[in-house]
Amino acid sequence: MSIALLLNSARAEEWKAEIAKHLPEVKVEIYPEIENYEAIEFALCWKPDVNYYTHFPNLKVIQSGGAGIDHLFPNKIPAQLHICRIIDPMLKSDMFEHILTCLMYAMKNFSAYTAGKKQQHWQPLVYKSNGETSVTILGLGEIGAYVAERLVQLGFQVKGWSSSPKELSGVVSFTGQEGLRSAVENSDFVVNILPLTDITRGILDRNLFNLCTRGTILINVGRGEHLVENELLEAIDKGQIGEAYLDVFHQEPLPKEHPFWSCSSIFITPHVASRTNISSSVLQVVDNYKRMIQGQALLNEVSLKKGY
Amino acid sequence: MSIALLLNSARAEEWKAEIAKHLPEVKVEIYPEIENYEAIEFALCWKPDVNYYTHFPNLKVIQSGGAGIDHLFPNKIPAQLHICRIIDPMLKSDMFEHILTCLMYAMKNFSAYTAGKKQQHWQPLVYKSNGETSVTILGLGEIGAYVAERLVQLGFQVKGWSSSPKELSGVVSFTGQEGLRSAVENSDFVVNILPLTDITRGILDRNLFNLCTRGTILINVGRGEHLVENELLEAIDKGQIGEAYLDVFHQEPLPKEHPFWSCSSIFITPHVASRTNISSSVLQVVDNYKRMIQGQALLNEVSLKKGY
Repeated sequence: MSIALLLNSARAEEWKAEIAKHLPEVKVEIYPEIENYEAIEFALCWKPDVNYYTHFPNLKVIQSGGAGIDHLFPNKIPAQLHICRIIDPMLKSDMFEHILTCLMYAMKNFSAYTAGKKQQHWQPLVYKSNGETSVTILGLGEIGAYVAERLVQLGFQVKGWSSSPKELSGVVSFTGQEGLRSAVENSDFVVNILPLTDITRGILDRNLFNLCTRGTILINVGRGEHLVENELLEAIDKGQIGEAYLDVFHQEPLPKEHPFWSCSSIFITPHVASRTNISSSVLQVVDNYKRMIQGQALLNEVSLKKGY
Repeated sequence: MSIALLLNSARAEEWKAEIAKHLPEVKVEIYPEIENYEAIEFALCWKPDVNYYTHFPNLKVIQSGGAGIDHLFPNKIPAQLHICRIIDPMLKSDMFEHILTCLMYAMKNFSAYTAGKKQQHWQPLVYKSNGETSVTILGLGEIGAYVAERLVQLGFQVKGWSSSPKELSGVVSFTGQEGLRSAVENSDFVVNILPLTDITRGILDRNLFNLCTRGTILINVGRGEHLVENELLEAIDKGQIGEAYLDVFHQEPLPKEHPFWSCSSIFITPHVASRTNISSSVLQVVDNYKRMIQGQALLNEVSLKKGY
C-alpha cells in the first residue's frame, strides 16, 4: 500500500519528506507520478483537480491538507469515502494573530497614519481601546471558538454566530437565520471564519451588510466564495461597510484588474492569515493512515452532509 | 484654598469640570487666570512654562497630569515641594495595546502589504507567530511591567531591563549598564518605556543600536529625548536597525522638514500611544488634594532624586 499526494502547492516535497520521517516503510508518491494507482488507499489532497478521486479504484480516505474541505469537491465524492481535515493548533493561533492584527490596525488608526505620512500629516486621532470594541465572529467551530475566547481574554466585547448553538465563556452566541441580525448589529467588527458550504456560500452579501450597523468593519478570513464581491463594493461606496480586511478571494492571486486593488477602504492580504504547519500537522495525517490500516475511527473526519 | 491648573493642553476645561464634580467646594482656576496666587497650595500641571512654580509662594504639591514628570523641570524644583504623577490603569492598557499594534503590524508584514497594494502586488510573505517573537522592554516601572506581563500572556518571549532588579513572571530581567547587552541582543523588538531622567536621556543611541542584533525593530513610546535621532537614521541606513515605530519626538508636532517623514523604515504616530483618561485619573488628583489638606502621605509621589 502507498500514499498519494495530490497537492496543488509548492509544498508537496515538504509533505513527502515529513511523512517519510514517520512512515519510512510506506511508499509516498506525488501525483501524477504514481506507479500503481490500485495500491493507493489514502490520498492527502490540497485543491486537487476535479474527479481526482476517480483515478484510484481502491481509495478509502481523502485527507485534506488544511482545515477546509470545500476544495475537495465534497458534493461529488462517493458516500463510502472518508474525508478528514487537519485541526492544527498552530493554524488556530495564527488565525487569531492575523485577526488581532487587523482589529488593532483599524482601531488604532494605523491606516490613516500610513496614508498621512507622505504629506507629513501630524493628526492625532481618537482611538478605541479593546474594552470599547465589539467583535462578532461568524463561525464558532474549532478556529472561530478559539479566536472568540482569545479576544475575550484581551478585553474585547465578543458575540458569535454559528449554525448550532455554542456555549463559550464570555461570548454572547446566536444561531440560525433569525439570530444573524442580533449577532451582527451594533458591532464594530464582523469577522467571517465560517466553513464554506452550500448554505454559507455568499453569506457576506447585501442582506448581511444591511443588518450591520453603519460603518461596521468586515474581516474575511474564511473563503473568497463567502463574499459577494460587487455587493461589498456597493456597501463600502454607500458607507454601510466602513472598511474591509480581506485575506481570501474568489480568484487567487487576485487579478491585477480587480477593483479591490484600487478601493482605499479595502486592505488586501494574499491568503496569509494562517498556513498549515506541516511539521505539526503531519502527525494527524500519519495517525489517520495508521487508523485506516487498523480499521479504527479516523481523526477529524468531516460529515459530507454538513460540509465541515 | 484653591487649586491651580497649569495645563498646556486643550483639556484644561475638561480637567476643571471633572475636579469640580468631586470637590464642589474648592475653587479651581486655570493659569494665568488666578485670583489669588497666595491661596494656591496644589497645582495640576502638564508641560508648564519654566519657573512656573515660583508664582505660587505657598505651593506644596505639584501633581503631574500624566505618568511622566520630566516636563515639570524636576531638576529645578525646590526640595520641599512634593511631586506626584498619575498611574492610570487605562493609560497602562492603552500603552500595551499601542505596542501590541506595532508588534503585530511589523510581524505580519502589514507594512509591505500596504505598500504593495498600489502595484497590485500579490506576494505572500513569511510571518512570525507570537511564540517565535522576542521582545525586550526597556523600563519595567508601572507601565513597562504591565506591558511585559501582558505580552508574556500572549505568548511572546519577553526580556526586560530596568535600573533596579525586577521579578516578573515569565520575563527574563536585566539591570544596570552591564545587563544592557544581554537585554537587547537577539531580540526581534526593543521597546522603550523608560522614564526620562538625566541617566536615560539619549539612551537610544548608536551604542545601544550596536548592541542589538542586526535588523532589530525599535519601538519608542517613552519620550522623544530618549532617542538620538540622527544616530537612528544612521543605524537604519546601515541596516543595524530594521525599522522604527516612533510615537514621541524631540519636537512635537514633528516638523514637516524632519527626515523621519521621508524614511520608509520609520512608522510615525503622533503621540497617541496612550492619553490620560481624565474621568478615571481625576480620582487620584482629588485624593491627593484631600491627603495634602489632611497631612497624609501622597499617592504616587515621585523621588526627585531618581526622577520617577
